[in-house]
Amino acid sequence: MSKVNIAEKFAKITDYCNPRIAAELNGQQVKFVKLNGEFVFHHHEHEDEMFLVVKGRFRMEFRERHIWIEEGEFIVVPRGVDHRPVAEDECWIVLFEPATTLNTGNVDNELTVRELERA
Amino acid sequence: MSKVNIAEKFAKITDYCNPRIAAELNGQQVKFVKLNGEFVFHHHEHEDEMFLVVKGRFRMEFRERHIWIEEGEFIVVPRGVDHRPVAEDECWIVLFEPATTLNTGNVDNELTVRELERA
Repeated sequence: MSKVNIAEKFAKITDYCNPRIAAELNGQQVKFVKLNGEFVFHHHEHEDEMFLVVKGRFRMEFRERHIWIEEGEFIVVPRGVDHRPVAEDECWIVLFEPATTLNTGNVDNELTVRELERA
Repeated sequence: MSKVNIAEKFAKITDYCNPRIAAELNGQQVKFVKLNGEFVFHHHEHEDEMFLVVKGRFRMEFRERHIWIEEGEFIVVPRGVDHRPVAEDECWIVLFEPATTLNTGNVDNELTVRELERA
């Protein structure tokens, strides 16, 4: 059991859209991911997903609207809801979600990451 | 579905050791709590507990050692492990844990909060 320094772990991440596992608890995972650019619209059938911004900002797009999530803010996207994160500049995001969650949900494309590294 | 600004929610909390529910997902809850002073040693039989410091710092005490958790750091305390958070000054903590988690775990005393308010 040891603590995690969020900024130190993020400093080691050199790519985008590639979540790292930072911790596991109660069947959930804490993941660190850097975004820069547009992700793909997708949803998760069985998982709610929390996005917490620790640096920068991003726009969470839904089919009919969007919300800007700023540093120090978070949003929970319920299961079944189509969403697409878009970052106009580099953004650091902490994810909190079930260990079963695939980053692209119901979509399988070049952004899909099945085997996550540790942060 | 709306975003949560962490600092704005914490600014409204005027007491200590009284966690507020900020979000729920996948049977888990995100809670906001301000600490200042010593909590009580306790453990959770069935719940792992994550403590993320967003302002200040606190010392997580275990039976044989302790770890200082600084702003921007977190620790996961596994189920069954005796722990006691101690804050020498006001500290803002985000908790991630199952909705079933009682703040004082196996201990029932004046610090126990059974009915949590919303953040």
